[in-house]
Amino acid sequence: MTAIRHALSTTRKGDFAAWYQEVIQAADMAEESGVRGCMVIKPWGYGIWERMQRLLDARIKATGHDNCYFPLFIPLANFEREAAHVEGFAKEMAVVTHHRLIADGEGGLIPDPAAKLEEPLVVRPTSETIIGDAMSRWVQSWRDLPLKLNQWANVVRWEMRTRMFLRTSEFLWQEGHTAHESRDEAHEHTLRMLEVYRAFAEEDLALPVIAGEKPENERFPGAEETWSIEAMMQDGKALQAGTSHYLGTNFAEAAGIRFQDREGQQRLCHTTSWGVSTRMVGGIIMAHGDDDGLRVPPQVAPWQVVILPMLRDAPEDAAIIGYCEELQKLTAQQSAFSEPVRVLLDQKPGKAAAKRWNWVRKGAPVIVEIGPRDMDSGKVSLLRRDRLWDEVSGKPAFAAPDREECAGRMAALLEEIQAALFTEARTRRDREIERGIDSFEALAAFFAEDRAFPGWAEVQWARPTGAALEAAVERLKGHKLTLRNVPIGAEAADGRCIFTGEPAVERVFVARTY
Amino acid sequence: MTAIRHALSTTRKGDFAAWYQEVIQAADMAEESGVRGCMVIKPWGYGIWERMQRLLDARIKATGHDNCYFPLFIPLANFEREAAHVEGFAKEMAVVTHHRLIADGEGGLIPDPAAKLEEPLVVRPTSETIIGDAMSRWVQSWRDLPLKLNQWANVVRWEMRTRMFLRTSEFLWQEGHTAHESRDEAHEHTLRMLEVYRAFAEEDLALPVIAGEKPENERFPGAEETWSIEAMMQDGKALQAGTSHYLGTNFAEAAGIRFQDREGQQRLCHTTSWGVSTRMVGGIIMAHGDDDGLRVPPQVAPWQVVILPMLRDAPEDAAIIGYCEELQKLTAQQSAFSEPVRVLLDQKPGKAAAKRWNWVRKGAPVIVEIGPRDMDSGKVSLLRRDRLWDEVSGKPAFAAPDREECAGRMAALLEEIQAALFTEARTRRDREIERGIDSFEALAAFFAEDRAFPGWAEVQWARPTGAALEAAVERLKGHKLTLRNVPIGAEAADGRCIFTGEPAVERVFVARTY
Repeated sequence: MTAIRHALSTTRKGDFAAWYQEVIQAADMAEESGVRGCMVIKPWGYGIWERMQRLLDARIKATGHDNCYFPLFIPLANFEREAAHVEGFAKEMAVVTHHRLIADGEGGLIPDPAAKLEEPLVVRPTSETIIGDAMSRWVQSWRDLPLKLNQWANVVRWEMRTRMFLRTSEFLWQEGHTAHESRDEAHEHTLRMLEVYRAFAEEDLALPVIAGEKPENERFPGAEETWSIEAMMQDGKALQAGTSHYLGTNFAEAAGIRFQDREGQQRLCHTTSWGVSTRMVGGIIMAHGDDDGLRVPPQVAPWQVVILPMLRDAPEDAAIIGYCEELQKLTAQQSAFSEPVRVLLDQKPGKAAAKRWNWVRKGAPVIVEIGPRDMDSGKVSLLRRDRLWDEVSGKPAFAAPDREECAGRMAALLEEIQAALFTEARTRRDREIERGIDSFEALAAFFAEDRAFPGWAEVQWARPTGAALEAAVERLKGHKLTLRNVPIGAEAADGRCIFTGEPAVERVFVARTY
Repeated sequence: MTAIRHALSTTRKGDFAAWYQEVIQAADMAEESGVRGCMVIKPWGYGIWERMQRLLDARIKATGHDNCYFPLFIPLANFEREAAHVEGFAKEMAVVTHHRLIADGEGGLIPDPAAKLEEPLVVRPTSETIIGDAMSRWVQSWRDLPLKLNQWANVVRWEMRTRMFLRTSEFLWQEGHTAHESRDEAHEHTLRMLEVYRAFAEEDLALPVIAGEKPENERFPGAEETWSIEAMMQDGKALQAGTSHYLGTNFAEAAGIRFQDREGQQRLCHTTSWGVSTRMVGGIIMAHGDDDGLRVPPQVAPWQVVILPMLRDAPEDAAIIGYCEELQKLTAQQSAFSEPVRVLLDQKPGKAAAKRWNWVRKGAPVIVEIGPRDMDSGKVSLLRRDRLWDEVSGKPAFAAPDREECAGRMAALLEEIQAALFTEARTRRDREIERGIDSFEALAAFFAEDRAFPGWAEVQWARPTGAALEAAVERLKGHKLTLRNVPIGAEAADGRCIFTGEPAVERVFVARTY
C-alpha cells in the first residue's frame, strides 16, 4: 500500500476550518469580494446553486406555490409595527438613508445631505412584514385561502463574523410565505414544507438530515413553532440547513391579514414561512468534500461528466477530439435523474494532468480522459470522483471501459454515485450519533473526549421552558454545545431529563454548530 | 355586425397610459408596493418574467457565458474611481450609511448613531465597477481571455417618476460583462449579444425590434459605443428594450484589468456589458395587449392552455372533470417549442363566465371550456386569445373541435399564435414607420399631426457630434422627440442631413419614447 498524495495542502483531520476555505478556493467556488461580509460566487459555486434552485423550485411549485417578487427595501414603520408584536427580532440590518451621491469638492463622493430620505429604508433581512402587507390586501375571504407564495431573493443581515456560504452579510435564498384559514391547516403546511426540504436535501443533495422541532429558545422571533433540518458535517458539527416556521396569528395581527370565514366572521389568518439559502452550498462542501477537494452530488453538478482529451499539438489531436466528440454525443443522449446527462468536452489549453486535478478539486462526479492509446483500443480512462484512489497502488483508480459501454452506462453510474455519496454520509452520521447518554455529566464527558470530531448526542429531556430552559442552554454553552432539534419519529422517552432530572417526555439532539 | 363589449373599461385609443395601468391590474401582474418607486411583481407577471429568464439564460449560456453572483453593495471608492474615468454617470443611488436599528425611546426605531459605517455602501445601480475589480484579480494572461460572465440580479436607481415595469427604482435584470484581448474581439462580442437580444425579442417574445447604434448623446457613460434594440409600442412610441455596450478600455483602466499579451506585454482589456430587464415585460404588454387585456406570447406564457370545466354543483360534475383531466393529459403530452405544453386545469371555485374573462384579461393564449354538451358530443369549446371575437356576431369566437383533435393540434396552434402575434406587431410597426421625411420641418409636421400615435420617422443625417448634435437633440426635444438608433443594415444615405443640411451619411430613427 503506497501513501496517497492528496490534491489539497490541508486535510479535514488536520484543520477542518482551513480545509473548508481551501476547498472553496481550490474548487473555484467563491471568494471574498472586498465588500465587508459579502462574497463573490464564482461560476462553479453559482452553477451548483443554480442546480439547487431548479430542483427545489420544482418541488415548491409542485406543492402549489407561485413565485413572485417583493421589494428589496422595507420601510422602517414595518419594523416598528413588528417590534410591537414580536419580541427580540434582530436589529442588525443595512439602513438606506440617502438617495444621491454628491462630490465632496476634494475629488471624493459623499451622500448628498439634500437627498436624505424622510423615512429610512431597511434592506430586507427577510420579508414577512412586507409580504404581510401584500397579503392583507390580497386576502378578503376564505375563498382567497390558502395563499401560497415563494420568492427567490437576496437578503442582508449585518454579520460581525462571516464565513463563506455559511454566514455572509448578503446571501441568496428562497423564502416561502403562506396564509391559511386555520391553525391546523397552517401547522400541517409548516410540516409539509419541512418534508419538502428533507426530500430535497436527501434526494437531490445526498445530504442526510434530521427533521425536527427547534426548542423554544431557538425559535424565529414571532414564531409559535420553528422546525429545522439538521445535517452533520464531517467535523461532527450540526448545520441547520433549512427552517420552517408556524407563525400562528402573530404576523397576521401585525400586518392585518384578516379574512371573512365561512360563517361570515372576520378572523386573522394563520401564516407560515420557510427558507433555504446558499448556506446549503457550505453544507455540501462539508458533508461530501474530501482531502482532494469538493465532491459534487451528480444531481447538482453543473457538469456531471468532464471529458479531457490528452492533446500533444500533434497531427493525431484532431482524431482524438473527434473520438471525444462522439463520446460526448453518446453520453448526452443518456438521461440521468430524468434529465439529459450534462457532459463537457474540455478543450481549454493546458496540460492534461493539471486539468485532471483541477476537475478533481472541483468535484466533477466523473472524469474521462482520452489519449491516443485509449482511442486506438476503442476505450476510455474513467475516474469516479467518489472512489478516486486505488488504495493499493496509491494512484488514481482509472477504469478502462469501451467507449460505447462508457456512454451507455453513464446514467446508471451517475445515479450510483449519487446514492453512494448519500450512503457514505448517512453511515458516518449514524455512526457519530450517541444515544446512550443519560446524564449531563456523561454528556459533558462525551464532548470533552479527545476525539477531534465528537458528533451528536441524542438525549432525553423534559422539554423545560422559560427559566429552566435558559439554565439548560447556559449549561450547554459552557461546553460550547447547543440544542439542535427534537427529531420527528424518535423513540418514546423512557428515562429522565438530563437537565432537570424530571421524567423525560421526548428526545433532543445536542451538538456543536457553526 | 354587433358592437363588441370589451373586457377592459379603458381602450388603447382612448387613453393609452390608463389602459396600460388597467392591463397590469386586470391581468393581476403587479401592483404598487407602498415603498417609493418599488413594485410587487405578482405571480402572473413574475411567471412571465421567469419564462423570459429561462429562455434568455439559455441563449446567454449557449454563447459561452457563465453565471455568477456579485455583491449588492458597492463601496463608495469604486464610484470615486469611476468618476475619475467616466464623465456624467448618474448619481441617483440608494446609499447605506448604518448597519443597525435602535429604539428611539418613543416606541419607534432609528438608525443607530453608534452603528454608522466608516465608508457608506451604495446599492448597485449596475455592476461594472465591482465586476471590474474581480476581473482585475482573475485575468493575468491572454490565456484567461475572453472572460464571459453574466448575472441575474436586482439593481436600484433612484427614479423620481416611476411607472410599473417601465421605470421602477428597483428592477430585475441580467447584466453580462466580458473582457477581451482586442478591440475587434470585444466589438464583435458587443454586436453578438445585441443579436442575441434581437433573436430573443423576436423569436421568444414575438416583439419585432430594430437593432442599431445609439447616437453619442445616448451612450452609457463610459461606453465607446452603445447599441440597442428598439421596439414600437401600440401608441407609436419607442421602447428601448435592451442595450449592449462596447466599453473600450475605460472601465479596464479604472479597475486595472490588465493582461500579459501573446508577446509578453502588459495591456488593458477591452470590455463589454449588456443588459435586459423587467422593463421588457412592459414591452410585451404595450406591443401585444388589446382592449380585452394582456395577450401573452405562448413561448413566455406561464400557462399556455387553460381548461375551464363548467361545473354546476351537480352529479355530472365528476364526469366533466374526468373528461377535462383526459384532455389535460393528452395536451401535456404535446411538445410546443421543444417543451411540453403547459396546461392548467382550473378548478378554482367561481362562475364559468367570470373565470373565462379572468383568463382573457390575463392573456392565456388558449382557453378551453368544457360543459355537459361539449362532453356529450366528445368536443371542446376553444378560444384563441389572439382572435377572440367573431366580428359578425360580436361574441367570443369559439371553435368546437373534437377533444382528441384539440389536444393533438395544440402544439401547432400555439406555434401559430406565437407567429401571428409577431406578424401582427411587425405589420403594424412597419406601417407606422415613415421614411419619406427629408427636412426638419416635415419631421415636425409629421409629429404635429392630429394622429394620436404618429409612429417613427427614419431620417437621414450627417451624424453630427458635440455641439451640433446637442443642437439637434434640443430641437427634437422641443417636439418631445428623441433619437432612437442608427439601424443596422439600413439603405445607404442619399440625401441631406435634416439637422445640418450637410450630405447625409446614414439613417437614424426619431420617435417619442417613455
